[in-house]
Amino acid sequence: MLRIDQYTEIFTEYLNQKITPREPHNLYEPISYILQLGGKRLRPVLTLMATSVFEADYKKALDAALAVEVFHNFSLVHDDIMDDAPLRRGQETVHEKWDINTGILSGDAMLINAYQLFENYEGETFRKLAKLFSKTAIEVCEGQQYDIDFESRDDVTLPEYLKMIEYKTAVLVGAALKMGAIVAETTASNCERIYEFGRDLGIAFQLQDDYLDAFGDPETFGKQVGGDIIENKKTFLYLTALEDLEPEQSIQLRHLFSINPQDPSEKIETVKQLFQDSGAAAKIQQEIEAYTHRALEVLNSMEVKEEGKEVLRKFAHALMRRTV
Amino acid sequence: MLRIDQYTEIFTEYLNQKITPREPHNLYEPISYILQLGGKRLRPVLTLMATSVFEADYKKALDAALAVEVFHNFSLVHDDIMDDAPLRRGQETVHEKWDINTGILSGDAMLINAYQLFENYEGETFRKLAKLFSKTAIEVCEGQQYDIDFESRDDVTLPEYLKMIEYKTAVLVGAALKMGAIVAETTASNCERIYEFGRDLGIAFQLQDDYLDAFGDPETFGKQVGGDIIENKKTFLYLTALEDLEPEQSIQLRHLFSINPQDPSEKIETVKQLFQDSGAAAKIQQEIEAYTHRALEVLNSMEVKEEGKEVLRKFAHALMRRTV
Repeated sequence: MLRIDQYTEIFTEYLNQKITPREPHNLYEPISYILQLGGKRLRPVLTLMATSVFEADYKKALDAALAVEVFHNFSLVHDDIMDDAPLRRGQETVHEKWDINTGILSGDAMLINAYQLFENYEGETFRKLAKLFSKTAIEVCEGQQYDIDFESRDDVTLPEYLKMIEYKTAVLVGAALKMGAIVAETTASNCERIYEFGRDLGIAFQLQDDYLDAFGDPETFGKQVGGDIIENKKTFLYLTALEDLEPEQSIQLRHLFSINPQDPSEKIETVKQLFQDSGAAAKIQQEIEAYTHRALEVLNSMEVKEEGKEVLRKFAHALMRRTV
Repeated sequence: MLRIDQYTEIFTEYLNQKITPREPHNLYEPISYILQLGGKRLRPVLTLMATSVFEADYKKALDAALAVEVFHNFSLVHDDIMDDAPLRRGQETVHEKWDINTGILSGDAMLINAYQLFENYEGETFRKLAKLFSKTAIEVCEGQQYDIDFESRDDVTLPEYLKMIEYKTAVLVGAALKMGAIVAETTASNCERIYEFGRDLGIAFQLQDDYLDAFGDPETFGKQVGGDIIENKKTFLYLTALEDLEPEQSIQLRHLFSINPQDPSEKIETVKQLFQDSGAAAKIQQEIEAYTHRALEVLNSMEVKEEGKEVLRKFAHALMRRTV
């Protein structure tokens, strides 16, 4: 097995080599642009790693890994239109640099291109990859829809929130790993377990993102600390706090999540205090712990050499410490 | 073999039965809406007919036919956003009835749903269907991009225009038929020929649409006669006229295609006269004839019972007489 940075380098080289100018230029140029903006390439690296874990040649998984990355970027292009986001990875989003129509159509082409990458696999492997991909892609759309719906609802429950982050973020992590397992032609049980490992790790990661958004170190957390609070996002912390606070404080929290002050610093501090006082901050840490633990447990149960498990374990720890 | 109206009825019943409420409501409701707006269902009917032509049970082709119709409607939803179209089949477009974000996301889900319908086919059939579908879908995107590009270009050539309508419209007609042939498990040569039949017929149909837009009978042509002229669309008639007119008249035509008069009736009449005088009106009729003839020739060459060819021949004649 290689190191994570080695898989990353190999994948990036493969990606760059696959990006070549094509006609019509106005359709394919935005695709090259978004794919070359960078990003950590975590999902495709997981695909390659999974193939290695099940003792097959990771090179066989390069097209499946590329499909995962192309799909991920498709979803970014369309989500950025929906969120009216001006920047992605510090650069202009596709619909900003070109226009909304370009973002829509280039995104569509990326989704189709992702499917086409599976054509490089034979028979059952092709079928399994395409089927898993479709199931995952539909769930990602559903997760995005739930996320949009939640903005205008004030009765979102915790289970609904967990399902939303599972669909919007975590299933693609599970699917990326399972695709590597499918390419390696391992057992159905191993395929299922590595999927669960990825999905639970993905949920843990997203919950940690919610936590760090409020309580993270501005020096190391990639985004603006307090961003979710400024945007009145109904995250795990908010929903849990609402449930557990005394009525009076609950009303205060709801009020704070209905205003958009020019200077948000006081609002951020008050909300953070409520997150602490309600016990929500402690609860989310327990949840993160529980999902991470469950992910590592299912990893242990896989029928595979200890070396492979150790690499995935390391990845999980590095991810949760945010060093990858 | 059944009659066209019988295939249409059977398909419509199957479609309606497949449309059931699903969650998240805001994602799936627009999909049900657009699929139930109606339309002639020509493409899915072609899929069913092709399966019958190759002596297999058309019922086996219902899911492939549905995939074709779902894809077609996906492209309408996204194209209507790009064209800022308020109406589709006399009803509000999805992005008008809901909003642009709903149109984008529901469209994405439809594209994925179309792929999922192929999962009801086994092994090689699944693979062939998905592969043909991806190739066709990408060409439809490329055709749409060329169409957008042509709006702001004044050096579009006739071959470029023909490629645009082939990709944007005709390949899906060919693919619809070929999918029926794949489901019937006929020879590769038959699959190829029925594809060419559909593609050439699709080009003939689109060219006839260009012709009728200018010279059609307002009583029977479904759209506003002169619509392309009002919108300054660079159709076959316009591009051919530009090539063949004397310099002075060519300049006049270019000028007319740069203005948007309040009352377009005089512009329409002058342009139609230029289309006649240049010989473009006669040339497009020759082209329509040539593509239709080629379609029928390749149909004759297929290795299949005369009865099946006769049904497709009838369909072609009905389509070109616009009675289906």
